[in-house]
Amino acid sequence: MADPETAAGADAATLAELAKRRGFFFPANEAYGGASGFYTYGPEGAALKRNLEASWRERFVTREDNMEISSPTVTPEAVFEASGHLDGFDDMILECPECGASHRADHLVEDSTGIEEAESLGTERVAELIADNGISCPSCGRELAGEPVEAFNLMFETSIGPGSSSPGYLRPETAQGIFVEFPRLAEYARNQLPFGVAQIGHGYRNEISPRRSLIRVREFTMAELEQFVDPETDGPPIEPVADVTLPLYSAAAQESEGSIERLTVDEALDTGVITSEWIAYYLAIAREWYESVGVDMDRFRYRQHLPDELSHYASDCWDAETELDGNWIEITGFADRGAYDLSKHDEYSEEDFSVFKPYDEPRTVERPSVEPNMSYLGPEFGADAGDVADELAALAERDPSAFDGEAVTVDIGGESYTVPTEETGFAVRTETITGEHVTPHVIEPSFGIGRVLYTILAHSYREDEVEGEPRRYLALPPRLAPTFVGVFPLMDKDGLGERAREVAADLREAGFSVDYDDSGNIGRRYRRQDEVGTPYCVTVDYESLEEGTVTVRERDSTVQTRIATAELPARLAALRADESLDA
Amino acid sequence: MADPETAAGADAATLAELAKRRGFFFPANEAYGGASGFYTYGPEGAALKRNLEASWRERFVTREDNMEISSPTVTPEAVFEASGHLDGFDDMILECPECGASHRADHLVEDSTGIEEAESLGTERVAELIADNGISCPSCGRELAGEPVEAFNLMFETSIGPGSSSPGYLRPETAQGIFVEFPRLAEYARNQLPFGVAQIGHGYRNEISPRRSLIRVREFTMAELEQFVDPETDGPPIEPVADVTLPLYSAAAQESEGSIERLTVDEALDTGVITSEWIAYYLAIAREWYESVGVDMDRFRYRQHLPDELSHYASDCWDAETELDGNWIEITGFADRGAYDLSKHDEYSEEDFSVFKPYDEPRTVERPSVEPNMSYLGPEFGADAGDVADELAALAERDPSAFDGEAVTVDIGGESYTVPTEETGFAVRTETITGEHVTPHVIEPSFGIGRVLYTILAHSYREDEVEGEPRRYLALPPRLAPTFVGVFPLMDKDGLGERAREVAADLREAGFSVDYDDSGNIGRRYRRQDEVGTPYCVTVDYESLEEGTVTVRERDSTVQTRIATAELPARLAALRADESLDA
Repeated sequence: MADPETAAGADAATLAELAKRRGFFFPANEAYGGASGFYTYGPEGAALKRNLEASWRERFVTREDNMEISSPTVTPEAVFEASGHLDGFDDMILECPECGASHRADHLVEDSTGIEEAESLGTERVAELIADNGISCPSCGRELAGEPVEAFNLMFETSIGPGSSSPGYLRPETAQGIFVEFPRLAEYARNQLPFGVAQIGHGYRNEISPRRSLIRVREFTMAELEQFVDPETDGPPIEPVADVTLPLYSAAAQESEGSIERLTVDEALDTGVITSEWIAYYLAIAREWYESVGVDMDRFRYRQHLPDELSHYASDCWDAETELDGNWIEITGFADRGAYDLSKHDEYSEEDFSVFKPYDEPRTVERPSVEPNMSYLGPEFGADAGDVADELAALAERDPSAFDGEAVTVDIGGESYTVPTEETGFAVRTETITGEHVTPHVIEPSFGIGRVLYTILAHSYREDEVEGEPRRYLALPPRLAPTFVGVFPLMDKDGLGERAREVAADLREAGFSVDYDDSGNIGRRYRRQDEVGTPYCVTVDYESLEEGTVTVRERDSTVQTRIATAELPARLAALRADESLDA
Repeated sequence: MADPETAAGADAATLAELAKRRGFFFPANEAYGGASGFYTYGPEGAALKRNLEASWRERFVTREDNMEISSPTVTPEAVFEASGHLDGFDDMILECPECGASHRADHLVEDSTGIEEAESLGTERVAELIADNGISCPSCGRELAGEPVEAFNLMFETSIGPGSSSPGYLRPETAQGIFVEFPRLAEYARNQLPFGVAQIGHGYRNEISPRRSLIRVREFTMAELEQFVDPETDGPPIEPVADVTLPLYSAAAQESEGSIERLTVDEALDTGVITSEWIAYYLAIAREWYESVGVDMDRFRYRQHLPDELSHYASDCWDAETELDGNWIEITGFADRGAYDLSKHDEYSEEDFSVFKPYDEPRTVERPSVEPNMSYLGPEFGADAGDVADELAALAERDPSAFDGEAVTVDIGGESYTVPTEETGFAVRTETITGEHVTPHVIEPSFGIGRVLYTILAHSYREDEVEGEPRRYLALPPRLAPTFVGVFPLMDKDGLGERAREVAADLREAGFSVDYDDSGNIGRRYRRQDEVGTPYCVTVDYESLEEGTVTVRERDSTVQTRIATAELPARLAALRADESLDA
């Protein structure tokens, strides 16, 4: 039996060692010294990541009946001119004149002063704070007062094509690959709002100081959902999530040094802590999803961005944050991007980024217009006749009732011009309008898959004792575990190996991920599976040959149960569907 | 019933139109004019691609018990210095001095002369052929004789980090991300050869002239498997594939203007048409896989590279090629990379890229050595004493029998030096050796996922007539189809819509990909599903409400069968497992 005194959670060093040794992840290209901020997922990590992405897809694409696309990572410059990334996607950089090391200037201030979100203060104020606090270079100790703090664009740049090549950038988010194809995607959605489009793929940020393992890296996997809505009429199905409790740390609470409030979706909306039903909806289903994939809900909160912390495109944003090594780390942003992106692309490109919204019934509208008699206006007003005609047209649109009397007077540059109404050609025409063009608003849940994965590993790490020996294991949810079942022969002799290989083959055939292992003693094989979070291990022993049974050992409790080999696939399928072993 | 006169296969224009209109794929960023060679997969294409990748993974990773990793796409320069890509990953470029357009010089020659694989001729010969054949610029008509043909490196370059940044490249293949981590991956494989490591991910080539839709693009998805083997002892499980027939177009057949030979794996190996069992093995399982995912086996061949066509790293290579619009297009390469990659990384980096191969039994070897008496050599040979000692040591290793007599003579620079054997300190020591270091060889099947996907769409396209109306459909294998089952209410009234939505929800719950559609008439809904290759459509009609039955319509035959609604999930599951509807 596992010791009831289980220690939960791994610190960064413990996790880095486990991740490298067992093949979850490690710094890439270490044979050449590597380049910081790039990680390779080993066999265990790549499998965990795939399972995590599949789980995200199931929840945020399939169940929500959204679309999913896949766009290129190399993107021409025009897209980021429109999106604002070319101008605004910057971090504050300060280069040490002594040793040449580059630093995030805002991080230097935060590390020395306790100020949070120094980025929102602007480059000048950050430079002042560096001088005022006598901050020096972390690499060489040189005082940095007076050194310039500059904006550094975080996009990786490249050139597309040979010769007269054109600039391209590695996308900093998958979102623009969706926005820029909106006209076509709206067609696929038959121009019916609301609809959602998701993408899982690589994003790139040329970070000044990559750090904290998978947390701040230069190449990462994002899972983004762009929910396109008519801001006037579309709402989410809020009722099914009304009672979900959210741990909310609002901007107001942060500003008044308040704390996290646990409110249901209904309460949060009623009290105005959350103003958008769409944001509330996604916070709710995301909270349930995080819990299902193994994020510790005692180390989890939603923090609203402070007004000066918002990205250039967002009108509101809540971050999902998890506690890691005593710090709160953003793992997902839930942003209200409003009509920003589609309006920009509409403006910068030749295409139409709106949706035609038909009225339930065609509407009749009255359109006043004038057609002034210029052979009257010309002789009467001379050079001013054209201006008078324009002003009459403007007046007709502004105030048709001005044409009710016998004559109409307009003012131009302080001068009055009176025209008999019959010479204005005033008329009101009736038009039938079938609908209007709406630029959808966008609600965007944007998940950092690497950060979620890192959190899951850190939060699921356990240490306990089994039969007096210390052991380490990952309490991963079974559907995320890289391997669902380990299969071992007690020894590879007397036909035990053959029988165990048959069991493994049968389980693979039944769709389980299986690891067959016959090396080392059984205890060591259990430890190996424990460390990579395999929820079940099946051992084939002499009784297996005689009685047709195997033992199934459960990871967390280490309890072993003997069951009939013939029933094994069905029993494991039931366990995968979350029933207990004893059921 | 579908018309038996079915036309199979789509040309490029038909496919491009269908792909764009129905959301398989389209040129990315068209709102901004795009950048050629970049495509976005729409909802149908992204789903098809995921299903294709899952099928590849199942066959080449899971069933082969290989590992799979995921490494970054941005890679530091040192890796490509070692791999040879920095120097050798070039295409021939020719820039028109009149209009500035860049062209693949070898393609200009191929298009004008009928010469194949002009790339293998070298830049000088290609420049000669351009002059000799009076080839002119396809863009502006300017004669190109005398214009320089140069090497253009196809890697996208970028800078990693700010300030004193270092060059990085977008990987041209996923393979190097595996090779460079070999020391660690070998540990995960417990240093046991053979083992295989796969990766599915983006690759990048800054093509001079992207063309042919998904075929020659600048960003693409590859699925690569690096099979590490001990060239002396490891063989694949050849017996299960011995009778698989391969359509082989060998280098010898190409050189003698011969044709495709259909040989079994056994025959191909026995006759020496294929020299590597590993290559033969992968050609066999890949052929079966291509067939299972819908590649037309009548438009498929394996073509061996000609000797001067081989990449810098390959000692042998076979391409899987499919016929598209009358051209044979490479969709996969099966290369014998030998020890090239691991040797290079071993040489360029500080790490050891070999595997220690223990002998079954430790071996005893005799190691002759000398320890010359310098107080004899010094007085005797003066300044030459050191050289004499070195030469004695070399001789001991080269020819220990030289020390059998009373004295030993060595030659240095034409001069002879004779030393009494007893003054040389000659001895033979016995050492026990437990094994040796082996640099594994690599067999690499490298799949272009986009090219395979394009082939599947082109080959599965069909036109026929249904009830006198022309129709188009994709005869996709059910497990690849973006949607497995469409669910329609006959009309959305009288409770038919509610019932159909329940049916759709039940099928989603049972794990099927479902498209619910209630817009337009039933015939139009069938056509929509036909065009995206949905194998089954379920219609809920008035009998459904009265009798508890639905109709299931099969895509290719258009035959409709009425079955009990309660049995629907089980019947569809049976169909998914490839049983027929009537079974």
